[in-house]
Amino acid sequence: MAEEKWNTAITKIEPNKILMRGYRVEELMGKVPLSHVVFLLLKGELPSKAQGTLMDAMLVSSVDHGVTPPSALAARTVASGGAPLTTAVAAGIMASNRHHGGAIEGCMRVLLDAVARKRASGKDAATVAGELLDEYKASGKRIPGYGHRVHTEDPRSVRLFALADEFGIAGEHVEMAHALRAAMKDKMGRDLPMNVDGAIATVLCEMDFAPEMSNGIFAISRSVGLVAQVYEELTRMRPMRRIDSAAHEYDGPSEREVK
Amino acid sequence: MAEEKWNTAITKIEPNKILMRGYRVEELMGKVPLSHVVFLLLKGELPSKAQGTLMDAMLVSSVDHGVTPPSALAARTVASGGAPLTTAVAAGIMASNRHHGGAIEGCMRVLLDAVARKRASGKDAATVAGELLDEYKASGKRIPGYGHRVHTEDPRSVRLFALADEFGIAGEHVEMAHALRAAMKDKMGRDLPMNVDGAIATVLCEMDFAPEMSNGIFAISRSVGLVAQVYEELTRMRPMRRIDSAAHEYDGPSEREVK
Amino acid sequence: MAEEKWNTAITKIEPNKILMRGYRVEELMGKVPLSHVVFLLLKGELPSKAQGTLMDAMLVSSVDHGVTPPSALAARTVASGGAPLTTAVAAGIMASNRHHGGAIEGCMRVLLDAVARKRASGKDAATVAGELLDEYKASGKRIPGYGHRVHTEDPRSVRLFALADEFGIAGEHVEMAHALRAAMKDKMGRDLPMNVDGAIATVLCEMDFAPEMSNGIFAISRSVGLVAQVYEELTRMRPMRRIDSAAHEYDGPSEREVK
Amino acid sequence: MAEEKWNTAITKIEPNKILMRGYRVEELMGKVPLSHVVFLLLKGELPSKAQGTLMDAMLVSSVDHGVTPPSALAARTVASGGAPLTTAVAAGIMASNRHHGGAIEGCMRVLLDAVARKRASGKDAATVAGELLDEYKASGKRIPGYGHRVHTEDPRSVRLFALADEFGIAGEHVEMAHALRAAMKDKMGRDLPMNVDGAIATVLCEMDFAPEMSNGIFAISRSVGLVAQVYEELTRMRPMRRIDSAAHEYDGPSEREVK
Repeated sequence: MAEEKWNTAITKIEPNKILMRGYRVEELMGKVPLSHVVFLLLKGELPSKAQGTLMDAMLVSSVDHGVTPPSALAARTVASGGAPLTTAVAAGIMASNRHHGGAIEGCMRVLLDAVARKRASGKDAATVAGELLDEYKASGKRIPGYGHRVHTEDPRSVRLFALADEFGIAGEHVEMAHALRAAMKDKMGRDLPMNVDGAIATVLCEMDFAPEMSNGIFAISRSVGLVAQVYEELTRMRPMRRIDSAAHEYDGPSEREVK
Repeated sequence: MAEEKWNTAITKIEPNKILMRGYRVEELMGKVPLSHVVFLLLKGELPSKAQGTLMDAMLVSSVDHGVTPPSALAARTVASGGAPLTTAVAAGIMASNRHHGGAIEGCMRVLLDAVARKRASGKDAATVAGELLDEYKASGKRIPGYGHRVHTEDPRSVRLFALADEFGIAGEHVEMAHALRAAMKDKMGRDLPMNVDGAIATVLCEMDFAPEMSNGIFAISRSVGLVAQVYEELTRMRPMRRIDSAAHEYDGPSEREVK
Repeated sequence: MAEEKWNTAITKIEPNKILMRGYRVEELMGKVPLSHVVFLLLKGELPSKAQGTLMDAMLVSSVDHGVTPPSALAARTVASGGAPLTTAVAAGIMASNRHHGGAIEGCMRVLLDAVARKRASGKDAATVAGELLDEYKASGKRIPGYGHRVHTEDPRSVRLFALADEFGIAGEHVEMAHALRAAMKDKMGRDLPMNVDGAIATVLCEMDFAPEMSNGIFAISRSVGLVAQVYEELTRMRPMRRIDSAAHEYDGPSEREVK
Repeated sequence: MAEEKWNTAITKIEPNKILMRGYRVEELMGKVPLSHVVFLLLKGELPSKAQGTLMDAMLVSSVDHGVTPPSALAARTVASGGAPLTTAVAAGIMASNRHHGGAIEGCMRVLLDAVARKRASGKDAATVAGELLDEYKASGKRIPGYGHRVHTEDPRSVRLFALADEFGIAGEHVEMAHALRAAMKDKMGRDLPMNVDGAIATVLCEMDFAPEMSNGIFAISRSVGLVAQVYEELTRMRPMRRIDSAAHEYDGPSEREVK
């Protein structure tokens, strides 16, 4: 049977030679940091210094959020049944879907739509944000990426926006993110800061990522915390225990500063 | 019902405050690179500069190895059935088990055992390596971490060992890794260089990681490539296609240098 | 923290007593066949004899379809990486999604819509089917559940429709399924028999199942074949092999009759 | 590249013809019940009437055990994050591992070992059971399959053993299961009835199943309850809720009898 060839543009493997998006792996190792290689594999090109810094900060922001998110609980529960570490981590990643991490994608679509409307109409960001919010309110929809069940001012968002400003990444999408917050405050009387999903969404828009990829970026980041969570479950806890997410207590290091 | 508290030492969540192993997330972001944060979450402490560099190079080394490993094929196959991106990535991570990435753990156990014997007996590395190889041969077992089905000299291993030397990470485990290769050449007439699993195993031993965690480190690294593979499958290929791993052709960028 | 109770209506557990939808498990065991218990758990009530027979036949129809579907390949690939049996089976179930088994849900939606239109309009099935097909053609959509890449007359569909007739299950949805086939033949010149997904969809509509549950019924059925596939992979094949789905050869029992 | 053929003995697919272990699928449908087809696919032959009845009762016994097992919690947690139904069901199956359902395999190994010793030594079951228990106590190991955290007399085990007697399936493994219970009572002063894992293990031994397959049989059975659990979660609960397994309340049908 004559077999049609199918194409891949990610990695070329030859004996003793591994090219990732064209770069030799051994040249990347020790020279290009992991977060920049994430950018390379997902976008096809190495990031600029500014893009690389934002990518790194974004990936660091979401490595873990304690034991209560569905991803951590699913991973620990599967580990508790006796599965190997990678199986349990995979369960955590499966929990990262539409409602958990998925707000990044939803928020990106809103921002991309809003900025496209702004460009097409020639109106300013505040006007477009106001019109869009009216539409959302009329159809009973919520704009994803604002507000958090625990944090009133998410430190991760504050830092990401500050870095975006500092490194010159902030553009029309950051402007629109602020305009939407102002419009919500104005029209609904609630001042909801962007949560980390919203901040990541904004930065991903500025760096021209596809919304469909955003959940994958979250999964890469959260895989770090999931390995830590599962390893802790396997080494500190007895199998088949009842995992009550509200009954946990932190007993790690006290607050300290990076030296 | 009185509920006993259970403990976690990874992340402390308070309103507007997220401490990872004691460090504020917003201080880590933009200041401590992702690979160092991986080290922090898994080991509990930030790495030294040398450890951080090796950790980064290790994680970069294994982000992807083309479309033929079980992880890439499982992920693409699940994507082909119509699953969302994170479900497909999870399938890839599930395929990273005993026979795929799992050689890291096996090799770590051999190296830890051999170095422990060396210390206990006072014999030199070559002697211990020779004795251990005799035992393995007698019981028909293979020492994991040497040889590769594609690469005769794995560029990732060469680079990792060079970095370990350059940054002063190389110690007794690197010595033993070399001694085992020499013993195999001597006693079995085959000069098998360490593959990337073996090289990672050696470096993880030098940095005092637990063998049980190694497959998780591989999973974190490979999650990067898996997101790229699944995204490519979802955007370039038709659903429910026959995925013949031998019939692919690379059509990405030609070889180029990091500038 | 005062905890709100949440409800479940599936199984009640007390010491030495297990009630499934109200029935003692030990009364079900040996008295009510597995397929009827599937119906009970999913619908809340035991099936009539006719419904039970159709449920059984449906579940039997889809237990396996050889080594080429994404579910079998994903499961074998994950097994090949060294994962435990249940992890590999899970990967197979993850591959059963929108494009694999998912046609059942799509076809149910079409049939439910068509029958609702028929009831609302008072038109006959042929007229409604024709109008619906025109709409689909105009918007470039395909009606799911017809045609198969291997079978020109799927023996599973033929048998399911025959059983539906024999047991008096066939009603408006079976009528509409036939009407749609006739309309396609008439308007597009192609006589596409229903495939097994379409036949299952039709029977599920007749038994008043929700479309959202259909992929779960497929997963229950296919889990049987997946266990067989993974067990065969683990016991007959070497790890980390290249799994070329086109290069397989059947070496099981020759055709035989149920005695 | 010349491709070696690989073999499969499960299902043969030809146009318009599907043979499962040699039987036409349309002949099985409506004639051979699902549980017998499970036996056929896993063992290669159709069961006797007695074997089929036991297989059916075993599969029915484990379809669900409420919301507290890791499998149900993992599945609901993944569903809560927004994953599709089959992804959530898969997470539940991944949780069915060494510590959850896995006691079946452990218990089978003990029974097979004990019966083999009995046959080799010519001693009676009580003597072998006593010797084996002494060994286990000396090495600090527990015999799996006895005792339950909720049930002091598991109704599923009682029923399975009664069916095994009634249908003439009970043989040396049932005898040994009773002998081990008596030995534990005699030597440890604790009368622990077999739990359902132990009872299934005993029956699987009598029907000559491989221990390695047992977790798969559990997974097939539990997939039924998992679909019901996930569907209930998706339709009755809000996304991203805290799932406190202790705070649930059954609101399904009251106890009733099969008519």
